[in-house]
Amino acid sequence: MRISELSAESGVAIPTIKYYLREGLLHQGEQTAATRAEYDDSHLRRLRLIRALLEVGRLPVASIKKVIAAVEDEDLPIHEMLGIAHYALGPAVEPEPGEDWRLARAEVDRLLDGLGWDVSAHAPTRDELAQTLLKMRQLGMAVDLAPYVEAARTLVAEVEMDTVPFHGPRDAAVEALVLGTVLYGRALDVLRRMAQESESARRLA
Amino acid sequence: MRISELSAESGVAIPTIKYYLREGLLHQGEQTAATRAEYDDSHLRRLRLIRALLEVGRLPVASIKKVIAAVEDEDLPIHEMLGIAHYALGPAVEPEPGEDWRLARAEVDRLLDGLGWDVSAHAPTRDELAQTLLKMRQLGMAVDLAPYVEAARTLVAEVEMDTVPFHGPRDAAVEALVLGTVLYGRALDVLRRMAQESESARRLA
Repeated sequence: MRISELSAESGVAIPTIKYYLREGLLHQGEQTAATRAEYDDSHLRRLRLIRALLEVGRLPVASIKKVIAAVEDEDLPIHEMLGIAHYALGPAVEPEPGEDWRLARAEVDRLLDGLGWDVSAHAPTRDELAQTLLKMRQLGMAVDLAPYVEAARTLVAEVEMDTVPFHGPRDAAVEALVLGTVLYGRALDVLRRMAQESESARRLA
Repeated sequence: MRISELSAESGVAIPTIKYYLREGLLHQGEQTAATRAEYDDSHLRRLRLIRALLEVGRLPVASIKKVIAAVEDEDLPIHEMLGIAHYALGPAVEPEPGEDWRLARAEVDRLLDGLGWDVSAHAPTRDELAQTLLKMRQLGMAVDLAPYVEAARTLVAEVEMDTVPFHGPRDAAVEALVLGTVLYGRALDVLRRMAQESESARRLA
């Protein structure tokens, strides 16, 4: 298809498509004449992925470039490719100096060991959870992650990972992971607050 | 206790305490001399609440004032007081014009009816969930909220609401709700991403 059809089909404006081509986010089409190129389904899939990373993942263009580079590096195993997108979605957490941080981080490592979860030793989610635990302790909260571990495990193992097309095109797998992680995460958060309101009404009625 | 003791006990600096007094976020102490006032446990509880709203809830001072006004209005039932804090924690969502929005919002209303959840017809969480559903549909995702509803219901009814001291001081109930909602929400989100990494490793190994 020509660029005008790619635009119509994807809903992405032609100047935006040209910008993605210049930035290397979208691969070039097949040049069929000096001023004409042919695009195909792989371009449509890539545009969907860019939109997911930009609008739903809220990633800056520099991070999107890294994710796209991982998608295009066919030597990179799918699990690692997904990891690069996944890690980019979380907030950047800086480890804090001091013993309290060290203890919280060690607690996270012990938790994951105990669960037998296969999470990289360098996963930024470890620091992210350590920061949350540390804050809970500083504020004097009782900390019991067990019900949350169980909720996350059940959702992910029994539902979420079934929606990622691991064996199709690489773009589509990353897109599904990003959309599912962010949008179902948002849905879960708001459903939790709705359930709180309802349970509060029930108990205080 | 004197203001210096209140500062030491709460970890909040004296100039900050004075700022909260001027803004009306913290109630005045009992004046015992022209330049001296006595503070008590109610001031400590209030400072904990302000810190929770500010540091964990990330609320602007204008929203904090509304929450504090609800805490101080003893005629306001506890459920409604908690609702004011709770609603302030979510993002502000503007309904969009058009039929798609109307349908998504009607779907949320039907879902809550079907569940029998006691969520106010004016709860902003209804628009928040409608927005998420609409985005999922626009992006062509398969939408099935059932497992998320079940996860939220189980967590909230069986664990979370037990940690809110409904029958103690009003400040303490709001503080517990805010801390639990935000920090366990953050923990759940990161545990979910950890479980995804682990499950992806398992399936692709």
